[in-house]
Amino acid sequence: MSFSVVMIGAGNLATHLAMALKATGNQVVQVYSQTAASAAALAEKTGAGWTTSPAAIIRDAQIYFLAVKDSAMLPVLRESGLSGQLLVHCAGSVPMTVLHGFSDQVGVLYPLQTFSKNREVNFRTIPVFIEAATPDVETILREVASQLSETVVNASSEQRQALHLAAVFACNFVSHFYAVAEELCAANHLSFDYLKPLIRETARKIETISPFEAQTGPAVRFDRNVMDTHLAALGKFPGFQNLYETVSQSIFDLHQKK
Amino acid sequence: MSFSVVMIGAGNLATHLAMALKATGNQVVQVYSQTAASAAALAEKTGAGWTTSPAAIIRDAQIYFLAVKDSAMLPVLRESGLSGQLLVHCAGSVPMTVLHGFSDQVGVLYPLQTFSKNREVNFRTIPVFIEAATPDVETILREVASQLSETVVNASSEQRQALHLAAVFACNFVSHFYAVAEELCAANHLSFDYLKPLIRETARKIETISPFEAQTGPAVRFDRNVMDTHLAALGKFPGFQNLYETVSQSIFDLHQKK
Repeated sequence: MSFSVVMIGAGNLATHLAMALKATGNQVVQVYSQTAASAAALAEKTGAGWTTSPAAIIRDAQIYFLAVKDSAMLPVLRESGLSGQLLVHCAGSVPMTVLHGFSDQVGVLYPLQTFSKNREVNFRTIPVFIEAATPDVETILREVASQLSETVVNASSEQRQALHLAAVFACNFVSHFYAVAEELCAANHLSFDYLKPLIRETARKIETISPFEAQTGPAVRFDRNVMDTHLAALGKFPGFQNLYETVSQSIFDLHQKK
Repeated sequence: MSFSVVMIGAGNLATHLAMALKATGNQVVQVYSQTAASAAALAEKTGAGWTTSPAAIIRDAQIYFLAVKDSAMLPVLRESGLSGQLLVHCAGSVPMTVLHGFSDQVGVLYPLQTFSKNREVNFRTIPVFIEAATPDVETILREVASQLSETVVNASSEQRQALHLAAVFACNFVSHFYAVAEELCAANHLSFDYLKPLIRETARKIETISPFEAQTGPAVRFDRNVMDTHLAALGKFPGFQNLYETVSQSIFDLHQKK
């Protein structure tokens, strides 16, 4: 089955999702973005029309995907005048029920991945979490999600929020620690490239070993000697000292608890 | 050229290093560990003799690798009675000069990687950092290190400490954040497997984009709304709330600074 869809949003998630929907045989009929250049760019990639005016969003598509930032979702819907259409948002931390002001036919399709402008991702490998207000919506969302991905999972709004939060730790925070390591290298005239095999292996290790089991380093045993040496070496980076202390304490606490 | 070596230590690093040394044509003549089972196991893998007595360490090997934990290094050397041999430690945070009490011929060979018992690693891809007290030692260490790895780099004790500290952030701390994500999944009856594509992509992304540039998430713009939602959702995990606040602040600070 194929569907006619409107993509509300033209950022990284909207772009990857719209292109995957098109690649799986659906028709993207229109793209909305408040930024004309973004709307036009995604429209060109998907063969869709585009608009920067919520009121100009067409009324007769089969599915409306909302992939704008959380705070923009309801204002855009209000201005659009959409009512009763099948509305599907893609946000981790927004409950499905916020859409009920506009329609009974609502749901969520949440792909758990980090999307960047210039990076291809294979949508087939991305877990897609769905939530639906009615059995009819669930049938449609499961159909669309299964076209996109090998892994389609029903998840409540609460579970989805937990996934989003877990993703903040496993992606956003991890990325920061890569950035801290990059800073430490730069301050000592060392290429960040030297750390890449370690970063690769650290990520690969947890494919087969639980991260709790994989944990090594001085904080597990709260080795004050090594930790104090590290803290002293961080003297030029007082912000990183606090970070070091807090994370070390957290590692120790987690391992004491178990 | 091939060398006769004694491996002092039989943990993960010692095991991977001894096996790589053997695989590249060197002869591991003896393994020391305070634990007989560990010494015997590594000796069997490398065709070496073994001992649990520092005083029984043979005197006439060409290179002595010290791959015991930092605090054990000097006690073992003292008990061994070794004096004047070529002593090479493998520790990130220990200055080379601590070996000078035992020999003029000293150096460091530091492979930057996380080693686990049941995981094969390809030593050729691991950056190896060397430091040598004399040009003769440097020649030997560069020869050995080049047999092991494609990437051999001279690094001072200060640079090596910075690398070790960067590795704590990029490996140990990253691993903890994977573990936190695992906890959050478990508490919500979700498989940690769902996060693996995200973890993979987050690690891959920094192969081509600087981690500073790759940073996304609410903390970059200190989006108090989203952050407060996340903190509320972490209500069952007070320790993780503090962690969330500290890391978010650190992300924001780093991005304000630049």
